[in-house]
Amino acid sequence: MKFTIQRDQLMESIQDVMKAISSRTTIPILTGMKVEATEQGVKLTGSDSDISIESFIPKEEDGIVYVENIQPGSIVLQAKYFPDIVRKLPQQTVELEVDDHLNVGIRSGSAEFNLNGQDAEEYPHLPQLQTEQSFEVPIDLLKDLIRQTVFAVSTSETRPILTGVNMMVENSELYFIATDSHRLASRKIPMQEQLQNLSFNNIVVPGKSLTELNKILDDSQETIEISVTENQILFRTQHLYFLSRLLDGNYPETSRLIPDQSKTIMHIDTKELLQSIDRAALLAKENRNSVVKLTTKADNHIEITSNSPEVGKVVEEVEAESLEGEELKISFSAKYMMDALKVIDTEKVNIQFTGAMRPFLIRPIDNDQILQLILPVRTY
Amino acid sequence: MKFTIQRDQLMESIQDVMKAISSRTTIPILTGMKVEATEQGVKLTGSDSDISIESFIPKEEDGIVYVENIQPGSIVLQAKYFPDIVRKLPQQTVELEVDDHLNVGIRSGSAEFNLNGQDAEEYPHLPQLQTEQSFEVPIDLLKDLIRQTVFAVSTSETRPILTGVNMMVENSELYFIATDSHRLASRKIPMQEQLQNLSFNNIVVPGKSLTELNKILDDSQETIEISVTENQILFRTQHLYFLSRLLDGNYPETSRLIPDQSKTIMHIDTKELLQSIDRAALLAKENRNSVVKLTTKADNHIEITSNSPEVGKVVEEVEAESLEGEELKISFSAKYMMDALKVIDTEKVNIQFTGAMRPFLIRPIDNDQILQLILPVRTY
Repeated sequence: MKFTIQRDQLMESIQDVMKAISSRTTIPILTGMKVEATEQGVKLTGSDSDISIESFIPKEEDGIVYVENIQPGSIVLQAKYFPDIVRKLPQQTVELEVDDHLNVGIRSGSAEFNLNGQDAEEYPHLPQLQTEQSFEVPIDLLKDLIRQTVFAVSTSETRPILTGVNMMVENSELYFIATDSHRLASRKIPMQEQLQNLSFNNIVVPGKSLTELNKILDDSQETIEISVTENQILFRTQHLYFLSRLLDGNYPETSRLIPDQSKTIMHIDTKELLQSIDRAALLAKENRNSVVKLTTKADNHIEITSNSPEVGKVVEEVEAESLEGEELKISFSAKYMMDALKVIDTEKVNIQFTGAMRPFLIRPIDNDQILQLILPVRTY
Repeated sequence: MKFTIQRDQLMESIQDVMKAISSRTTIPILTGMKVEATEQGVKLTGSDSDISIESFIPKEEDGIVYVENIQPGSIVLQAKYFPDIVRKLPQQTVELEVDDHLNVGIRSGSAEFNLNGQDAEEYPHLPQLQTEQSFEVPIDLLKDLIRQTVFAVSTSETRPILTGVNMMVENSELYFIATDSHRLASRKIPMQEQLQNLSFNNIVVPGKSLTELNKILDDSQETIEISVTENQILFRTQHLYFLSRLLDGNYPETSRLIPDQSKTIMHIDTKELLQSIDRAALLAKENRNSVVKLTTKADNHIEITSNSPEVGKVVEEVEAESLEGEELKISFSAKYMMDALKVIDTEKVNIQFTGAMRPFLIRPIDNDQILQLILPVRTY
């Protein structure tokens, strides 16, 4: 194998596939990165067997030449060293050459590295998914779907299914739903018409996979293809192939958790509320999910308070745009509330309470595409 | 006590004095920050008993009012909470008020914090140094003196004196010298004429103190006053008072370590050499101080190599501007070499070797104000 490649493109692909490579895998060859050259270009592969990522650098695209002098072949390189070496090479052009003894020469300017490679034949083959359950979504929308839900997955392995995000198609809408049983985050987007016969509801993607995918994808209005089989999901763009296993088990029915009536309704500035809760949370650093209290006051005002006997207390009044219904005193995790408010991009939010002991709902003020639910904390 | 203060100025002072506050001190009140209001302004104090820092915010300076409505008094606040609270306050103006029960009210906009304070009478008094051993240096030069030497102090407590930087006046020059016994870094600056009768040579300032001082000082051509007593050193600007203890013991005589002859002399581009050593060091990640080898070649060339049997090897040729004297093969710590080259700001360096087993010297090409010495590594 031999090729000459542009360093920046190589570096970008390396960074993408590194997201799947772990130094703590039980399969030694998976600590390496597979490099494969064909007449079409160079493909890098990384995998920790939960997630597999392939990134392709075409020989030429839009008239720009990225790879030259290709002699096809493949090799596995130690992922612990390869990325740093490429990052620090002195020139924009990098030559990579493998001899018959798996010695890999990496040359750039006057620098020459010789690394011990591993036989690419020993690297596991990635499954090529064949499925009719495929659809496309714009990349920036997929990134929103992930960002607005994935923070709410459970970090505990007590109920492993809750460490994933439930992907569901219902009434021509695609839902992402995550819950750790103390709060729930849901985001939906309309599906394209021709896909409205698509249907699945028990697809659960590990939160970690979606977090890594979100890091790799650049904001773009181009589309990404999503394909689903019984136990795997594939996200594919022109040069990226991101495969993740799905979680086993039945995702709980979450729609019943959402109250369909409310007793106190508040419209309020998202950022003002977020910042006042952030301040109130400061004194409760010791508690993992610092608890703050919200009390409705006269004239559309609410009061945010927090109390930590050893440190002190904080009181802040915030004026709501509107405040209707019953008076209310409710306590909740400042962290959960801040997580929810941070992913709502509208200037104002709509918060609906159904009493101090019932879950409450947070939505953007002018649409129902995002829904955040939080269970209050009992403080007496 | 009561005052109204501008948040940005308060925050800046808090960040400075926090550099002296440790949560792991054995004297509980030192986990707090002392706040003292006088008719002149507000003074903050932090100390871990090794380092003490005072920062003063004047009532008014250059026609700008920083503090208003002052009722003199003092209090100690928990340093774990106070900085975050001030950082997150909603408005530029902050009101601080202490009642007779040591309750501290902090108000800004509609946010109101009430913190439990501690009696300022219990806070230790900082010594006010009286000394005739005082002199001034420009702040940017002091920052250079620190930056170009402090990295070479020992991190091991085997010889505690080596964890400090030796400050010395000799032949009308001020020296900073640090060594961990494997390498030495020295920087000197000329003293102002009227101070040439000043003399001290066994002043050893803890490296940690100088590192913290360097973080606090902003680059500036204004001067800082340095005062030395037997066991303490004080750095003072208009609004900052930085006091550090000195290390006990005799600093070793280092001038004898410096070879006065050389057998191989090289002039070379600082950055090119630094980058090639950085690359060669990549394969030797496992060793704490990865060892690289330098070999002189024909036509003013040198070769930098490194070899790690399990990973591979790297070879790189670098062209020197000039290369005179005996042929040479020498091995040394890549980390020490990079540390030394990074603090030499000139485009070219002068490196003088006295054989493979003798320390070698690195200097800027056109002056001798910086001197870096490194002991080679025996590789056979």
